[in-house]
Amino acid sequence: MSTLKSFIEVSADSHFPIQNLPYGVFKPSENESSRIGVAIGNLVCDLSALVDLKLFESSSLKDTKVFHQGYLNDFMSLGKQVWSETRKELQKLLSSENPTIRDNQQYKEKIFYQIDKVIMLLPARIGDYTDFYASKEHATNVGIMFRGKENALMPNWLHLPVGYHGRSSSVVVSGTKLRRPCGQTKGDDDAAPTFNQCKLLDFELEMGALVGVPNNLGEPVPISQAKDHIFGLVLLNDWSARDIQKWEYVPLGPFLAKNFGTTISPWVVTMEALQPFAVDAPHQDPTPLPYLQESGKNTFDIELTVGIKTEKMSEAHTICKSNLKYMYWTLSQQLAHHTISGCNLNPGDLLGTGTISGPTEDSFGSMLELSWKGSKTISLGESGETRKFIQDNDTVVMSGVCKGKDYQIGFGNCVGQIIPAHKY
Amino acid sequence: MSTLKSFIEVSADSHFPIQNLPYGVFKPSENESSRIGVAIGNLVCDLSALVDLKLFESSSLKDTKVFHQGYLNDFMSLGKQVWSETRKELQKLLSSENPTIRDNQQYKEKIFYQIDKVIMLLPARIGDYTDFYASKEHATNVGIMFRGKENALMPNWLHLPVGYHGRSSSVVVSGTKLRRPCGQTKGDDDAAPTFNQCKLLDFELEMGALVGVPNNLGEPVPISQAKDHIFGLVLLNDWSARDIQKWEYVPLGPFLAKNFGTTISPWVVTMEALQPFAVDAPHQDPTPLPYLQESGKNTFDIELTVGIKTEKMSEAHTICKSNLKYMYWTLSQQLAHHTISGCNLNPGDLLGTGTISGPTEDSFGSMLELSWKGSKTISLGESGETRKFIQDNDTVVMSGVCKGKDYQIGFGNCVGQIIPAHKY
Ligand SMILES: [Ca+2]
Ligand SMILES: [Ca+2]
Ligand SMILES: [Mg+2]
Ligand SMILES: [Mg+2]
Ligand code: NI
Repeated sequence: MSTLKSFIEVSADSHFPIQNLPYGVFKPSENESSRIGVAIGNLVCDLSALVDLKLFESSSLKDTKVFHQGYLNDFMSLGKQVWSETRKELQKLLSSENPTIRDNQQYKEKIFYQIDKVIMLLPARIGDYTDFYASKEHATNVGIMFRGKENALMPNWLHLPVGYHGRSSSVVVSGTKLRRPCGQTKGDDDAAPTFNQCKLLDFELEMGALVGVPNNLGEPVPISQAKDHIFGLVLLNDWSARDIQKWEYVPLGPFLAKNFGTTISPWVVTMEALQPFAVDAPHQDPTPLPYLQESGKNTFDIELTVGIKTEKMSEAHTICKSNLKYMYWTLSQQLAHHTISGCNLNPGDLLGTGTISGPTEDSFGSMLELSWKGSKTISLGESGETRKFIQDNDTVVMSGVCKGKDYQIGFGNCVGQIIPAHKY
Repeated sequence: MSTLKSFIEVSADSHFPIQNLPYGVFKPSENESSRIGVAIGNLVCDLSALVDLKLFESSSLKDTKVFHQGYLNDFMSLGKQVWSETRKELQKLLSSENPTIRDNQQYKEKIFYQIDKVIMLLPARIGDYTDFYASKEHATNVGIMFRGKENALMPNWLHLPVGYHGRSSSVVVSGTKLRRPCGQTKGDDDAAPTFNQCKLLDFELEMGALVGVPNNLGEPVPISQAKDHIFGLVLLNDWSARDIQKWEYVPLGPFLAKNFGTTISPWVVTMEALQPFAVDAPHQDPTPLPYLQESGKNTFDIELTVGIKTEKMSEAHTICKSNLKYMYWTLSQQLAHHTISGCNLNPGDLLGTGTISGPTEDSFGSMLELSWKGSKTISLGESGETRKFIQDNDTVVMSGVCKGKDYQIGFGNCVGQIIPAHKY
């Protein structure tokens, strides 16, 4: 079987071949309405236009209004079968062998936009955002730094995917600038805390799962069904103020250290598009309790990078290369655990994986780890610049790609720049 | 000046005289639309009907659509001046001296509903729910139980209002039954955790502030303006699974132990109605940092009770009498702290105070404290029954009232029953 091809030209290094078709919310220009599109090559295909032109055939899509909205929630809530049907119809419509759109210039003008000309918005109305802590390497690194080698992992860590509730109001789409936060910090030798701008500002390389299908309050999702509730994945930067976190987080967890902003990438790559890149998750020892047991290939080989671009640099220098597959607890384990109390998940809820660190020093997913708590300097390459934590006007660029034999699919970029703190 | 009176009869023990006028969302019956009302005596006054009948005079209310909705968010976002105008107009329309509605039977039929016949809904679409830990007595009690008297309060506790992000999807309105959660627990002497239903189920007596006026991401609310952002208060029961919490909460805070449900009362008592009951907050030593400093009467004298009704009892037996005024950190300090990082609050966001315990043993706001970690038995009065934690089919009833010289205003009840766990 030859590889599926679109009549839209897609370069070999593009993240968006016809095998991907990630969903996003966009406006063609500031004064036009928001709608749903899929990315293909350097174009966005407007799904609301496909509906208006009556190009969808299946009964569930023919007259749908879900693509004329400024959020994916309603489409995501329709469930796996509709997601799959939509993908099939889109691949058919965009195929190099289908003349319907390919040979109709009027259609093309109504359907396609240059991807670098449109305004990308948050892909969903995020009701609740949860952040896990699912990378063993990350939890171990942090544990060694703060508690020493002997007690690196907390006693519960190997038994459950540790997670906490995050702040959904401050989840922003890639490209949004964020202000360096201020707050209380206290040095180990200080008698009392002082009010300062954050001096130890960090990123956390994560991915986020968007919930599609909800569950009712009081009705846990069995792990065997957990995958059917997840629509797709995005890149996620869980900005973290390490000095604020250190002082505030005992005993109820991080609060202001995290809630000043969380950046996600605009394109949601579907679980169906990721399926060819499914791989085995790390072996789990001890064996988790039955409600967390699963078999098969439950994670994905997604190569992740983080780069930093200072004001003086013309492009980002890569400082971290990691992979989703290093993560100890899988997305389905996270979702099953999240609901085992009866907690209800809604369409658009966001589940962050936690920082994805790998086994090698260049695969650590935060500056806290890369600079080993500020004890090492991180080189930014030819620029000659170095960093321990993030400085004002630095831009952090995350990227993710799955490399196959015949094609690659990717997530595009998740970009955020830090602007100076308020002056007090 | 004589006390303001309504033509609606209001008994002396009612929570809802004309001085209160708390807002809620209701449906007259299952098949009718949701709308906004205020409670007065044993009636609900339908504000959407007042708009339809053109009974509002001010330009901001004449043609408003904010009362024809199933949530208070849009009305709350209009700000203090409109809240105040609305209150004035309602007090005028409902006054015993105003014949407009009083003497018009047709109007009355369109405007009023029996309060015990309508269906009450969640008062707002809650985007984010935050829970603080602002009672010194509660934090001290918990600290003594788990860490001993010497280290009862964590080092940060007297310097900032400790808070964490909660789960908004599972906030439910009074009357909603909640299922006992299951999850991992581990006894101190056990080698590994086991999967169980929660055996140490608890309530937490709290109040919740509903945010009205939003702030932008990156723009902290100065404490001098914090009050203007809060629309009103509700009673809040932060159900807690103590055994699940104990195993999971290190290091990122409570997760499944809290997210199976949080119950709030349906009637939102406005800050304006509460103003006559404003009192000084407890003295704070050490003096907090400038961004948390305020003067004046910054808390309220609200008498709070918690009762438990078992299946065998005909009414709840009171096991706790507390008061909002005991709380160390005020609502304005909580809001100022929450936003100092730049975190944005939206209309409808809910800020829980944390468990409100008082100085005496009968004023502790949780069964954990009342039973002192299960070491004491809590008597349920004449019924002869006792409890240490909550049993299946128990109903927890919270209530709150402000007692003035000429009148009292209250919150009604916040009620929740626990139904048995899923069987596995
Ligand atoms: Ca994180
Ligand atoms: Ca609480
Ligand atoms: Mg964050
Ligand atoms: Mg709760
Ligand atoms: Ni072929």
